[in-house]
Amino acid sequence: MEIEDSLYQYIERLVPIPRSITGNGVRQTLDILSEIVPIVQHEVPSGTEAFDWNIPKEWNVNDAYIITPDGRKIADFHVNPLHLVGYSPPMRQKMSLATLQKHLYSLPQQPSAIPYITSYYEERWGFCLTQQERDHLADGEYEVVIDSNLHDGSMTYGELIVPGETDEEIMFTSYVCHPYMANNELSGPVMNAHIAAYILEQPKRKYTYRFLWLPETVGAILYLSKHLAYLKQKVIAGFVLSCIGDERAFSVVQSRLGNSYADRVVNVVMQFFYSECKFYSFLDRGSDERQFCAPGVDLPFVTLCRSKFGEYPEYHTSLDNLDIISKNGLGQSYDWILRLYRLIENNNKYCVTHFCEPNLGKRGLYDTLSSKGLSAMSRHIRNVLAYCDGNHDVIDISYRVKLSPDKTMQFLEILKQHNLIH
Amino acid sequence: MEIEDSLYQYIERLVPIPRSITGNGVRQTLDILSEIVPIVQHEVPSGTEAFDWNIPKEWNVNDAYIITPDGRKIADFHVNPLHLVGYSPPMRQKMSLATLQKHLYSLPQQPSAIPYITSYYEERWGFCLTQQERDHLADGEYEVVIDSNLHDGSMTYGELIVPGETDEEIMFTSYVCHPYMANNELSGPVMNAHIAAYILEQPKRKYTYRFLWLPETVGAILYLSKHLAYLKQKVIAGFVLSCIGDERAFSVVQSRLGNSYADRVVNVVMQFFYSECKFYSFLDRGSDERQFCAPGVDLPFVTLCRSKFGEYPEYHTSLDNLDIISKNGLGQSYDWILRLYRLIENNNKYCVTHFCEPNLGKRGLYDTLSSKGLSAMSRHIRNVLAYCDGNHDVIDISYRVKLSPDKTMQFLEILKQHNLIH
Amino acid sequence: MEIEDSLYQYIERLVPIPRSITGNGVRQTLDILSEIVPIVQHEVPSGTEAFDWNIPKEWNVNDAYIITPDGRKIADFHVNPLHLVGYSPPMRQKMSLATLQKHLYSLPQQPSAIPYITSYYEERWGFCLTQQERDHLADGEYEVVIDSNLHDGSMTYGELIVPGETDEEIMFTSYVCHPYMANNELSGPVMNAHIAAYILEQPKRKYTYRFLWLPETVGAILYLSKHLAYLKQKVIAGFVLSCIGDERAFSVVQSRLGNSYADRVVNVVMQFFYSECKFYSFLDRGSDERQFCAPGVDLPFVTLCRSKFGEYPEYHTSLDNLDIISKNGLGQSYDWILRLYRLIENNNKYCVTHFCEPNLGKRGLYDTLSSKGLSAMSRHIRNVLAYCDGNHDVIDISYRVKLSPDKTMQFLEILKQHNLIH
Repeated sequence: MEIEDSLYQYIERLVPIPRSITGNGVRQTLDILSEIVPIVQHEVPSGTEAFDWNIPKEWNVNDAYIITPDGRKIADFHVNPLHLVGYSPPMRQKMSLATLQKHLYSLPQQPSAIPYITSYYEERWGFCLTQQERDHLADGEYEVVIDSNLHDGSMTYGELIVPGETDEEIMFTSYVCHPYMANNELSGPVMNAHIAAYILEQPKRKYTYRFLWLPETVGAILYLSKHLAYLKQKVIAGFVLSCIGDERAFSVVQSRLGNSYADRVVNVVMQFFYSECKFYSFLDRGSDERQFCAPGVDLPFVTLCRSKFGEYPEYHTSLDNLDIISKNGLGQSYDWILRLYRLIENNNKYCVTHFCEPNLGKRGLYDTLSSKGLSAMSRHIRNVLAYCDGNHDVIDISYRVKLSPDKTMQFLEILKQHNLIH
Repeated sequence: MEIEDSLYQYIERLVPIPRSITGNGVRQTLDILSEIVPIVQHEVPSGTEAFDWNIPKEWNVNDAYIITPDGRKIADFHVNPLHLVGYSPPMRQKMSLATLQKHLYSLPQQPSAIPYITSYYEERWGFCLTQQERDHLADGEYEVVIDSNLHDGSMTYGELIVPGETDEEIMFTSYVCHPYMANNELSGPVMNAHIAAYILEQPKRKYTYRFLWLPETVGAILYLSKHLAYLKQKVIAGFVLSCIGDERAFSVVQSRLGNSYADRVVNVVMQFFYSECKFYSFLDRGSDERQFCAPGVDLPFVTLCRSKFGEYPEYHTSLDNLDIISKNGLGQSYDWILRLYRLIENNNKYCVTHFCEPNLGKRGLYDTLSSKGLSAMSRHIRNVLAYCDGNHDVIDISYRVKLSPDKTMQFLEILKQHNLIH
Repeated sequence: MEIEDSLYQYIERLVPIPRSITGNGVRQTLDILSEIVPIVQHEVPSGTEAFDWNIPKEWNVNDAYIITPDGRKIADFHVNPLHLVGYSPPMRQKMSLATLQKHLYSLPQQPSAIPYITSYYEERWGFCLTQQERDHLADGEYEVVIDSNLHDGSMTYGELIVPGETDEEIMFTSYVCHPYMANNELSGPVMNAHIAAYILEQPKRKYTYRFLWLPETVGAILYLSKHLAYLKQKVIAGFVLSCIGDERAFSVVQSRLGNSYADRVVNVVMQFFYSECKFYSFLDRGSDERQFCAPGVDLPFVTLCRSKFGEYPEYHTSLDNLDIISKNGLGQSYDWILRLYRLIENNNKYCVTHFCEPNLGKRGLYDTLSSKGLSAMSRHIRNVLAYCDGNHDVIDISYRVKLSPDKTMQFLEILKQHNLIH
């Protein structure tokens, strides 16, 4: 199966599963992703401290809906889990429309969209529905049913560590806590699993790769509270994958200071392959880069998006569905990330084996007949070689010789084969 | 009384007093300013060495004027002290108009202005008058009277040191040696005294503040010759106040290398509050920044002006009078300088008290209901916090989060109150 | 004789001598240049190893031509040595036009030009002729005569070391291996000799000057293989002189990293005197800067050209002849290089002898009568002085005060004479 088909089909399968930052939806999601790579599921008890936070109670929902005065069932959680405000406690109560209205959420500007609303840390119930449906609610008595469960359980997250030749690490993370939505969030965890599968299949790799599927914010904070000292020692670049399934843009949220190794890697790839890329400063952050790049944490992370969260109209509504992602978009994103991976794996510094220019002609790398100009290949070979001084890595050489990292690596490979660099 | 009324009224009172780099005019000026703050007057004997210079003789003028052939008194020092070339030695002599003309100064381009001319270091007499008046001088015998006195006396300067919690110092200087003129110079010494009064009134201050009222050039050189070693150790920022009473511009003359702490402080304040500010390089210097920033001296000074000296048409003429300054302009300048003061006093580096983002919601600093966007305040709080890493001072944070230093300090204050930074 | 006449006449004399990277043409060329300065000729045996290279066999040509079917002699080496492909081995053979064509070179785009072709490292014979001539070759039997000699001899290069007060060195190099052509190459070695003569005539010089006349590429590599360790210690700036006789441009090929001392010197001179100068990055290199700036070698070299090699239409053809160079162009280039020389010799750091501004008035360097502005000279004197802080060299001061290095040096000289700097 083509990779983009696989990406799309997993997203399709995961849409109906109701996820939140805790609960069985996360576990089911990780179970399905485990068909792709062997994800290890970790459980963290409610109440566990994580820096300034505590793991919240576990929340599960059996059913939730509203019965209208004329007996119709609306805002049905089983039709779309977005209908229920996240972390709504259990209740069953009859009330007037006026009372109910205080607990309803809709978007007047997007009348056909169900908004996505959660209330993790304040106990509060509510329903979300389209403005269109809300406008037609008649006066009368409504019955609200929330058959949910908030209890001391645990928060679940997934982890996969793929060892490499060194214990220096590259991290890829995504989040598994948003119900229903396709671009934000399912493109992220599904992409993460497929990238992991690719890297796992490689016969060898230089770096160790750490893949995480975390409930956003509190999951990342919990993970850092357990592993920060180690990660600060080992991680040389990290990537949050978010909203990575549409075709409308390539976007990068830079690290806090904008100058990490992850920024360097992404910058050069964007310059040569995705020159229309939108760069956002850390001021525009919104996903787990908030934690990975927080002061004192300062892991070298950037976030990769197509349309960045908060920047596309369907964001955080029921319109963020399968219609706005595509196989093509997913495939492009997959290629983009593998390009970053290949560069990181090969971003070495090389040194010439001879003082002065070597005799390229006797190695067949140079026109032996001098004439007006050089062939492009001769020129590129010579230029790449000129910056193999032990100080320039592939990224630096790319900028110097104005060739993409991929082309630069090809020429470096030829030079290595001829023992002209080491 | 409003501060701008006080500023204006002191300037009004000081206009008639004939100042020069030495003499009683300086003493009277400092006496009047001492009504505002307790200025200490220092006397330095004529002939005292100061680096490459010597303190000149003291010069005082009882009277000076010219009697025209038809018996009129013109160029009367008591009408306007600008009529007499500074440091003119005493004389009384009759002469033809042709001879007199060699000693007259006027401005053909500004026919209604009396120029300001001095000759400190070469003995030379002369009178300044308007081109209009000069053009109507009839032939005949003129009598020139200069009842001045050049003797071994002393040069006077004023000093006020306001101690703070540390002996690190902020300096404010202005000069008291120009007769009559309002913007250059009276706005400077009067502003200096009012800023001193404000700082003196504060219950406490972090830094020690040193205020100086110096005869320009030789006064500054003398002062540095006495205090250079100490000042180099203690001064972290200094400001020359000059031409600071009009409303036409905000101008900054940068330090010699343009990168001192004073430059940093001024740059950020200008960027956020006075974006039309004109920056002049050290090549455009002209006041005592010439000495404070001289090679080897290199104190971290910038000069603050509204219309910079040399850049406005009334400069160094009788047109630099009360008409070109205003209460409004003086009040704006006062606010400007206090803004710099407040930033310097509070320009600390802060460090988060938690790894990762703290739980702002439980402290009421964050919307607990997640939705499409954040309120501006939540966003600013989070952004300011993100740069409290122990490396960024308030200035750095301002640039990073694109908020004025004042707003940045407000958010830092909130974060301090919640023990989220220290 | 005017310098530009001498430059032009030596080029005229050297045009007919057939040069190649080895052979008697080089020796004759150096003999003639030795009339100007005492060049030492060195001989390096064929086969000598030089880093990745070996010195090729020595190549000399007695005669070479083609006899047409109707008995005419064409492509005669004695008419123009460009007719013979460089390093063609000896042969005498009759052949059809079709066979001959495989060994002919011409330029369809420049039908009146004989191209310049060599084949140093692969044994290959050929003739170069104009496209016009080639188009009129009739069918029939041709006789090809190449009376050349390829034997184990030696490669010749020239060297002149002019000692200075220190053993820190400035290098000037050019190449002697191109037959016939005027701008590339004769302008280079002839200019090099005349610059050497000028420097040799100076009563004293701060630096030691090393002038080289090398066969391009292998000559430079050989020279570096013998002297690299010493040169890396001693050379502070070096200049390749190439294509320096026309009037169409001023061009600079920057060093490999673009930030060597030679770049600094050239940059400031270009900014103030030749602001239309074209700067080429190291990617556009082509002469011996390829070796002098190679990784690991990294001598601080730039290349100076008028129309850069490869950038003008006559390059590497018989059209690069006396018509495209001029006495005027040669004279300008000579002045340009001497400007660089004078700056290097005088590019010191100075320090004021007094704290604060000195009293310039008492030294006649300043208007003693204060008025609205300063004379330009007073302003420049003060500005240059302001950057004599022991950290700025002449180049830095030039940029700071926005004056050419020559003007800056003039003002520094005045300041030195008055003991205001040391």
